Amino acid sequence: MPAYSTNMRLKFPILALTLEIITIILFAVFVVYDDGKHGGHGAHNTTHHEEETEQNPLTLYPMFQDVHVMIFIGFGFLMTFLKRYGFSSVGLNLLLAAFALQWGLLVQGLWHLDEGKIKVSIFKMINADFSTATVLISFGAVLGKTSPVQLLIMTLLEITIFGINEHLVAEVLKANDVGASMIIHAFGAYFGLAVARMLYRPALRNSHENDGSVYHSDLFAMIGTVFLWMFWPSFNSAIAEPGADQLMAVTNTYFSLAACVLSAYAVSSLVEHKGKLDMVHIQNATLAGGVAVGTCADMDIGPFGAMIIGFVAGIVSTLGFKFLTPILASNLGIQDTCGVHNLHGMPGILGGIAGIVAVALGKKNGSAAMQAAALASSLGFALVGGAITGLIMKLPFWGQPPDQNCFDDSIYWEVPEEEEGEESLAHGDHSMNKAEA
Amino acid sequence: MPAYSTNMRLKFPILALTLEIITIILFAVFVVYDDGKHGGHGAHNTTHHEEETEQNPLTLYPMFQDVHVMIFIGFGFLMTFLKRYGFSSVGLNLLLAAFALQWGLLVQGLWHLDEGKIKVSIFKMINADFSTATVLISFGAVLGKTSPVQLLIMTLLEITIFGINEHLVAEVLKANDVGASMIIHAFGAYFGLAVARMLYRPALRNSHENDGSVYHSDLFAMIGTVFLWMFWPSFNSAIAEPGADQLMAVTNTYFSLAACVLSAYAVSSLVEHKGKLDMVHIQNATLAGGVAVGTCADMDIGPFGAMIIGFVAGIVSTLGFKFLTPILASNLGIQDTCGVHNLHGMPGILGGIAGIVAVALGKKNGSAAMQAAALASSLGFALVGGAITGLIMKLPFWGQPPDQNCFDDSIYWEVPEEEEGEESLAHGDHSMNKAEA
Amino acid sequence: MPAYSTNMRLKFPILALTLEIITIILFAVFVVYDDGKHGGHGAHNTTHHEEETEQNPLTLYPMFQDVHVMIFIGFGFLMTFLKRYGFSSVGLNLLLAAFALQWGLLVQGLWHLDEGKIKVSIFKMINADFSTATVLISFGAVLGKTSPVQLLIMTLLEITIFGINEHLVAEVLKANDVGASMIIHAFGAYFGLAVARMLYRPALRNSHENDGSVYHSDLFAMIGTVFLWMFWPSFNSAIAEPGADQLMAVTNTYFSLAACVLSAYAVSSLVEHKGKLDMVHIQNATLAGGVAVGTCADMDIGPFGAMIIGFVAGIVSTLGFKFLTPILASNLGIQDTCGVHNLHGMPGILGGIAGIVAVALGKKNGSAAMQAAALASSLGFALVGGAITGLIMKLPFWGQPPDQNCFDDSIYWEVPEEEEGEESLAHGDHSMNKAEA
Repeated sequence: MPAYSTNMRLKFPILALTLEIITIILFAVFVVYDDGKHGGHGAHNTTHHEEETEQNPLTLYPMFQDVHVMIFIGFGFLMTFLKRYGFSSVGLNLLLAAFALQWGLLVQGLWHLDEGKIKVSIFKMINADFSTATVLISFGAVLGKTSPVQLLIMTLLEITIFGINEHLVAEVLKANDVGASMIIHAFGAYFGLAVARMLYRPALRNSHENDGSVYHSDLFAMIGTVFLWMFWPSFNSAIAEPGADQLMAVTNTYFSLAACVLSAYAVSSLVEHKGKLDMVHIQNATLAGGVAVGTCADMDIGPFGAMIIGFVAGIVSTLGFKFLTPILASNLGIQDTCGVHNLHGMPGILGGIAGIVAVALGKKNGSAAMQAAALASSLGFALVGGAITGLIMKLPFWGQPPDQNCFDDSIYWEVPEEEEGEESLAHGDHSMNKAEA
Repeated sequence: MPAYSTNMRLKFPILALTLEIITIILFAVFVVYDDGKHGGHGAHNTTHHEEETEQNPLTLYPMFQDVHVMIFIGFGFLMTFLKRYGFSSVGLNLLLAAFALQWGLLVQGLWHLDEGKIKVSIFKMINADFSTATVLISFGAVLGKTSPVQLLIMTLLEITIFGINEHLVAEVLKANDVGASMIIHAFGAYFGLAVARMLYRPALRNSHENDGSVYHSDLFAMIGTVFLWMFWPSFNSAIAEPGADQLMAVTNTYFSLAACVLSAYAVSSLVEHKGKLDMVHIQNATLAGGVAVGTCADMDIGPFGAMIIGFVAGIVSTLGFKFLTPILASNLGIQDTCGVHNLHGMPGILGGIAGIVAVALGKKNGSAAMQAAALASSLGFALVGGAITGLIMKLPFWGQPPDQNCFDDSIYWEVPEEEEGEESLAHGDHSMNKAEA
Repeated sequence: MPAYSTNMRLKFPILALTLEIITIILFAVFVVYDDGKHGGHGAHNTTHHEEETEQNPLTLYPMFQDVHVMIFIGFGFLMTFLKRYGFSSVGLNLLLAAFALQWGLLVQGLWHLDEGKIKVSIFKMINADFSTATVLISFGAVLGKTSPVQLLIMTLLEITIFGINEHLVAEVLKANDVGASMIIHAFGAYFGLAVARMLYRPALRNSHENDGSVYHSDLFAMIGTVFLWMFWPSFNSAIAEPGADQLMAVTNTYFSLAACVLSAYAVSSLVEHKGKLDMVHIQNATLAGGVAVGTCADMDIGPFGAMIIGFVAGIVSTLGFKFLTPILASNLGIQDTCGVHNLHGMPGILGGIAGIVAVALGKKNGSAAMQAAALASSLGFALVGGAITGLIMKLPFWGQPPDQNCFDDSIYWEVPEEEEGEESLAHGDHSMNKAEA
């Protein structure tokens, strides 16, 4: 194991400040307020939104806030399940998303300049928040094994690559993906898995003592789960056509998630020791229905169709956590901390396939071939982009944690010290505790 | 004590999957998207909503999401106060509500078929979420003493009975109950109390070591309390007539809850040792104002009228927790884990009575006699339905926990094991800990 | 140290009930529902809202709920960072805010009587919630060192003084302060600091053993931080002019906060030991961008202008926590428990100054001199009002805690007892623990 320099004192502040200053300069050049007047840039699915926006520019604001909660509370707390990694989970989630939304707005906006400017509307803010989700999903795959500097670099690169693939899927292929099963969930998952493969740590093959939960960390994670679960209908419908399509997206997601809960709980009990429920499945697989119904959310598949998708997703996801994750780690060298392959990867592909079938059956205007091309493009950009990004992140001067300090906040955070004897709530400096013991 | 078979491995998955598959089939037959066109089915209070909905079918969506948060975060975390029962509280809350909302939509919809179909609108989704609240309230009464299988059976039966009573109250008696003091709160509470009476466990008369809170579990519960408190104005106004009535329902609930907080805190301090505040009162009695103002929420009782209702509810509820709950347990054999009688039962009846008085005083069109009949109907269906349901749940093959394993997640959940010595956050398998100790 | 009588049994209930009863009487006399008809009272910035409100009185309701969440979850959980003071933080936050919103509605409404009445609209409810924020900010300065009785007295006085200053700033000076950098944040902070100065406790100069966090209390605090961060765009835009101005306020706040996160993280790492991040900075300084952009939020400063403000605020706030707070405590006798000077005080002044500059540059109609007068007025009322209030709170019969019981819930709350040996989650009665040890 090389002796990484994990002191962030100079490299992290310099990188963060530089990125932010460059971003502010680019904003000064390109970004203005939305004035409601738009040139004809021919984007096929923003016209109706623009019409509505002229009347009231804040129509989508409640949807935006729901998505916002999913990004910052949902993803942030979902990852607090690790016993000693809660500060990093919710804290770095905030850092990465705050940078990603700025960068995402720029990257997405540069494809659609309007009189040479990016005009910020609530619609664009929702898309900026969406782009952060890809990074947060990938973050889940490498959780506990990367430094803040590595993660900022990943954010910069992943958002950029995401922007290219999204443009290709939406504008060139003109594929449907209203809830982003393909361009966010599958993309973010396989990007993260490719990064994780590059950062493979043989020493972590035997489970790390900190790679697990404690009772209250599992409850914190449920805050994330439940907020994600509740607001997923907003995620899948926020950028749908106003009116019937948007209502359809809400309805489909609502029922898909409800059906998914039943199948995830059932399968969890079926595969676990003595029929007990496993918190990992409950925290994650109950959400697979939201992922899998994403592409089809605004298609006329019927509420029962949405429920079938959610039902299957809950089964696939739970089985993945139980049987596939260990195989990926031991046979393929992919150490997927949060199991994003099961929550976002497979359900994302399932969603993409459901979209191909639904379009082929005429549930929505479009071309099944283009849907398939969109899925392939998302997977391709994710795997290649993630592999390259992982190689860059592997360079030895980004301050990655030594194996024994993985999954431990105290390497990058001031952690409150444990009081002696009577107080064992604070974890303090873990190694110190051991020394004391 | 009979030797219950608490292994859920077959019975829980089979029941959950069967229920979900039947539900999906019924959805395939009956449930379609709302197309905005409605036949004249004569329901007295949906017409205006339908008019508004034709313009924008998502007008009620922010209100829906507020109610959604109350159901899944509010009820779920409110019950995490028990020291070793947090997984079950928030986890089974999710399971039961996910099934209940599907079943509730069917049960409620079958009374109002439109061209032979149930057309899903946001309005119907709100009502589906509402129906889940009855089950979650009853869940509170039997918390810690029931298996997931028992609870799914309770959900199935309670939602069905709720649907009958709701139809009777709203369509036959044409009573006012916009915030559902009677048909949800009083119904859910007395249904749960009747079930709890049937499931009486003499061995739990002396307090169980796990039937209490620890410091952080009380803080988790406050997440539930505060979200319920904040969004209660949405609960009471979501299905009110748009416009002035809806504003009135928001306003009355806002002020009722604010007044209730002051009286609950005051009485808590008054009745406790050395004038200290008791978390049980703060977590629960502060919400009684939302329950009690429910029936009157859209009536012209004046903001100060709403405040008086909330003020009285806060007092009644706190006194109930202090003095009545022990009596119910010791004298009537009703072991009400969460004290739902104090939060939903008595305040619900108070709300029903306030509604009778307000209608008699002409604060809203209606008949005081019909209001009284609605209250009686809700209580009657609750007590009889709850008793029958409790008898069915008592059958010895549903895997109920032995007395010594009540209030303990580890009988139905994989719970993270405690690390030896240094780490006492994880509770692990409680009995194992004891063996080790 | 005088022997304070900390038993609240009579004085707290009597005060709380008296205040609530007086409030209800005043509501009966003055407060009615909004009927949408308004006389010409000449308030310069409510006209457009009234027009919109006539069409749909609930247009602002989603914004109101976002602000509501900030007040009750945001402020409440932000203060739970202390290891043994979580009940008081979230519990007293609820109590004070529930009283403050009633009192604030009266105090604000009495300046704008309409036909002799206060007509409650969602707009007025937002302003009532806003007024509570001043008290909750001041509460942060004296957190852990005051009794519930003292805090109710502070609420009563602070809201009253706030109402006078707000009227002066908005109606007499006609200054811009849409996001309330001056009239809420700077006012609340300096009011609280003045109170803290009056309540100076020399015995707490050496750090108190309970004046710090443990691992999970820091995570609870992050719930508060993230909800405040997410919904701040609603706080700063809720009472802006509908349309372009409101969108601008949302946009500016969104980007200011994002930029602030990057600079706060960078500086935290720069000033801490080994470049580690400090939770105190992350929990607080990441929010300074929302405070500082408040006054300018609806001004045409450009998204990049907002980002510069946020960027600077993140730096100033973090440096304040690191270097200024210790100096205030040791040299000026101002013991600022939560560091409100760094989160609300300095960023509030920064916001006021930014507003002066922006108005001088013509980014919004107004007078730079009046903006400056508004800032001076807010600081003046805060310091003088806070000092007087602090003197009243210092009277020895309000039950303030002895020095050794500061920052400890168990003096005013029933706290669950620790189980012996196996269970160290519950803190129980702290002194008892010590006795056992």
